[in-house]
Parts: sequence; C-alpha cells; structure tokens
Amino acid sequence: MKCKACGGKAAVNMPQHKLALCAEHYLQWVPEQTARFIKKYWMFGPDERVLVAVSGGKDSLSLWDILIRLGYQADGLYIGLGIDEGIGYSSESRRLCEAFAQKHGQKLIVVDVEEQYQSSIPVLAQKGARGQVRPCSVCGVVKRHEMNRIAADLGYDVLATGHNLDDEAATLFGNTLNWHKELLLRQRPVLPGHNGLARKVKPLCRFYEKEMTAYALLRDIEYIYDECPFSVGSTSIYYKELLNQLENQRPGAKLAFYVKYLAAREDGLFAEETERNQATFGELRDCDRCGQPTTHTGLCAFCRLVSRDENGKQ
Amino acid sequence: MKCKACGGKAAVNMPQHKLALCAEHYLQWVPEQTARFIKKYWMFGPDERVLVAVSGGKDSLSLWDILIRLGYQADGLYIGLGIDEGIGYSSESRRLCEAFAQKHGQKLIVVDVEEQYQSSIPVLAQKGARGQVRPCSVCGVVKRHEMNRIAADLGYDVLATGHNLDDEAATLFGNTLNWHKELLLRQRPVLPGHNGLARKVKPLCRFYEKEMTAYALLRDIEYIYDECPFSVGSTSIYYKELLNQLENQRPGAKLAFYVKYLAAREDGLFAEETERNQATFGELRDCDRCGQPTTHTGLCAFCRLVSRDENGKQ
Repeated sequence: MKCKACGGKAAVNMPQHKLALCAEHYLQWVPEQTARFIKKYWMFGPDERVLVAVSGGKDSLSLWDILIRLGYQADGLYIGLGIDEGIGYSSESRRLCEAFAQKHGQKLIVVDVEEQYQSSIPVLAQKGARGQVRPCSVCGVVKRHEMNRIAADLGYDVLATGHNLDDEAATLFGNTLNWHKELLLRQRPVLPGHNGLARKVKPLCRFYEKEMTAYALLRDIEYIYDECPFSVGSTSIYYKELLNQLENQRPGAKLAFYVKYLAAREDGLFAEETERNQATFGELRDCDRCGQPTTHTGLCAFCRLVSRDENGKQ
Repeated sequence: MKCKACGGKAAVNMPQHKLALCAEHYLQWVPEQTARFIKKYWMFGPDERVLVAVSGGKDSLSLWDILIRLGYQADGLYIGLGIDEGIGYSSESRRLCEAFAQKHGQKLIVVDVEEQYQSSIPVLAQKGARGQVRPCSVCGVVKRHEMNRIAADLGYDVLATGHNLDDEAATLFGNTLNWHKELLLRQRPVLPGHNGLARKVKPLCRFYEKEMTAYALLRDIEYIYDECPFSVGSTSIYYKELLNQLENQRPGAKLAFYVKYLAAREDGLFAEETERNQATFGELRDCDRCGQPTTHTGLCAFCRLVSRDENGKQ
C-alpha cells in the first residue's frame, strides 16, 4: 500500500476514505482535516480562546495537540473525578495530562472534584438513586457543570471536547433506535453559547476512533489506554460494536450515517427550527445556587447532587 | 412456561411482550391484535373491499387467513413473476395460494406477468441496467404497478400486504442509516389512496416475523419455506440480521425502534406536513400509457421497463 501524497510506504490505510498515507503525510492530513471541520461547522475563529477538556485519553490529548499545531490559543482543562477502581484511573490520567502540558509548554487547569466538593464521582453516585448502578450519568452532570463553570469564570469563548466519529455515531445510533426527539435535535458538532455558557464544539467528530489512535501513536503522545472502568459493558460500547460490524461489512457506513444525518438536518428533515428551539430555551432558568441554566425550579441537577446527604436527601 | 390466559402449557413465548400463550389463545390473540392495529392506524372499515397481495409465504397467507377470520371482505391477488431458479419458486408459490383459496372458499385473482407482458421478472431485469445484478428493484416496480392496476380495475378500496415488523424495521433501519428523507417520510402503516390508486395498508406491521411463523404453523397454513432465491445476500436481509442481534440482546428493541418512530412522527419530529407532502404530490403526473401516477414525464418506470427491447432500448 502506497502513500497517495508521495508514493512512499503507507503507514495508515483508510478504506473508508479510499486513502492511504505515510506517517509524515498522515500527520499533515489530520490537522488539515480538523481545520476544515472547524471552518465548515463554524466552530471558532483564530482569535477566540479555546478550552480543551482533556481526560488523558488519545482523543482529547490529540485534539489539544492538533489545536496547538494549528496555532489556536488552546489551554487544557483536566477534571479529576476520583476514580481509582484498583488501576489508579484518575491519578494516571491526570499525570498524563500534566506531562503533555509540560512537554508542550501549555497551560493546564486542574479541577479536583473531590477537593472541591468533598466527594469523588463514585461517592456522589452512591448518594442518590441516579447512577447507583453505574456512575456515568452522575459523572456526565459533574463534568458538564465543571466545564461550564471554569470556561465562564476564566472567560473562554469555546469549550472543545475530543468526541470522535465513533462516539458521535454511537450516540446518534442510540438516540435513533429510541427516536429520542430532544436528544436527536440536540446533537450537533457545535452547540451555540447561551446565557453565559461557552460555545461547545467537537472538532474531531468526523474522525474514526482508529484514525485518532493512529494519530496519537504516530505523534508519540503518551495516553491512558484503559477506558474508564465504569464504562465497561455500557450501552454506548455495545452500539459501537454493532456499528463496527456494519463498518467492516461496508467501509464508510459509520461516517455516512453521521454525515448524512447532519446533511438531512440542513436539508430540513426535522421540524426543529424557531418554535421548538425557542420553546426549549424558553424553559431554561438560572439555578438558584450556581446560576447555570437548568430546566428545574430551584437547584440544577449538579447542585442537587452535591448538596445531598449520605442518605440521598437534600 | 404457562399460558397467561388459561394457565395451560404455553406454545408461544414472546419475551418482547412479556407474554406466553397456549396455541388456542395465541390463535385468538393474533387476530385481536391485528384488529387493534387496523383500527389504531385507520387502515380500513368493515364495509371496504380489501385485496390481499399473496405470495405463498407465511406472512401474506396468514394475513389473508386473519382478515377472513375477522370477517372482512378480502380477496387474494397472486402475481406470477416467472421465477424458477431450479426450485420452481413461482409455480410452487402459486400452487400454495390456489390451495389456500380453494380450502377456504375464497376468490383468488391471478396475474401472470410473463403471459401479460411476454417477459418474466428475470428477463425484464436483463433488459436494462436497472436490476441487472439482482432483479429485486425491477420486481418491486412490476408488483407495485400490477397491484395498483388490478385494485383500480376491479374497484377495491384497499390493498393489503403482509409486511411484518422485521420487514418494516429493516426498511426503516436502512432508510435511517442513510437518512433518506423522502423514504423516511413515506414509511407508514397506511399510505393514503391517491388519484385512483387504492389505499395501501400493512396490518401485520407490528408482528415479529417469528410470531407470524408461529401463527402459520399453528393454523396449519401450508406456505413456501424458501425465500425468493434472488433475495439471498440482500441488504435488507443483512439489516434484519443486525436487528436480530440487537433484539437478542434487548428483547423488544426491534418493536421499540419501529413504534417509537411512528410515535415521534405523530409528535412532530419531522418537517413533513403540508408543504413537503404537497410538493411531493404536486410533482406527480399521469403516465402517458397506463395512467398511473409517476414523477417522470411521459412513461412511468413500469411502462418504460416493459417497452424496452432486448438491448435495453425503448
């Protein structure tokens, strides 16, 4: 297999794009494509300050690396969740984020949930009915809240996350299997900023997971190989496996599923504009404690979570 | 496993409905459910004349059987496609339809495509680029045209087909993977009559394929076991297999996928009403030869097909 750009030996073969590239050209191609997606989906401009949420995994560290290479003002945000599970998951992921920041001379902001709120994610999950089986939903609430809080406090315009195509396609697949209207309408590469919240963007949303693995390996990025121990057996991993089967049978099917969804929306498939969005935003209030938008009266989901006592009562 | 109705030994277990029934109660339950779906989706009333398209398979013969048991005026329509493929597929399926009609004292209308148009489906498929690999798309055009023609000529109000849940879910899955807007908006249990065409209905659309197999077996309906030899390896069979995997993992997932799609449409997920439908219907013309609606100028797809010469030219 030869590199399409130089005819040299290909390092990465991508049948989904009918494209093979050598290491050098692959490491050029990925940032070029990222820059293209950032423009195509109106994610952010060259003067905006970007905060990249990094977990220590290949996707988010690669995203940070790419944005730095593209010349953006991108700082990192690491949120310590206090997950150990016998493999020191959080401490190892923090170490890797700090090592990356140091190596590249970049600023990393660290928030430790346990220090800040006197509870790790597993402890918070134990407190309420929500997330008792698996703390992922609690973890989602906490991460979203902390990302919003830090971005607002420190004046970032944009929050960037490392969601790749496999993540986005699996989410879309789940929302489609259940025809979950609100979630189907919410899934976009860009979520506009609103009411003091930074804009949220997913610059890697069109890269296959294996493309990001190849990028991280070829760029010598040290990342945590383990998935979060709580994600094992999750629905989203099951959906990823089903989509991988489809992809193996028909290379490009996963990308087509996601990209055609975006195109169909653009083309007016859904009854989404004006009324519905206004209705959704119209229902948002400010949380009484933290001020972040919420659909609840009184406290938002996060503030209710951290103010629970050990019996799950407010 | 016990029958939920009488406590006797269950013959059919349906984890997807958390329901097990003995043979007697299962054979009551299927028509009751069918009657419920006919009403729920406004398919037809007791005074309307129904033409059931029968292929000799378990679904369409079971549908005919159910409609007869429910007291509807339902005649059968068999369309001979001239498919042999070494197993006498069409002649055997015709024999089974005729045997069913005779056994139940019902009227069966037989159309033979080869007699009528001097070409079997495999021959028609050879004539043009369309369907040369697999004649399924040509077959679809021919069956649709002939069903419409007979229903109009003989004054039937309604055309009923035996599509089951597995068929509908696989179609929906394919249309969703490709976000095919027009097809997504066209898939309903009822397609309203239009411009001289009979209303089209799918009364079995909420029954699992295995539920129809159980019905046909318990009712001693003799049906053709073979799938059409041309359907082997088709995309829709591949989608059915993927959905079966999902169903095995999560009983009820297939039904939820289809039913939630219908519910989300009712709930206004899609921008489908008024303008779009008017635009679609507005583009329809009458075929110059047969008069059936078509989006083409001049001849419809069917008339172009049967008027081709052996080199595929008109």
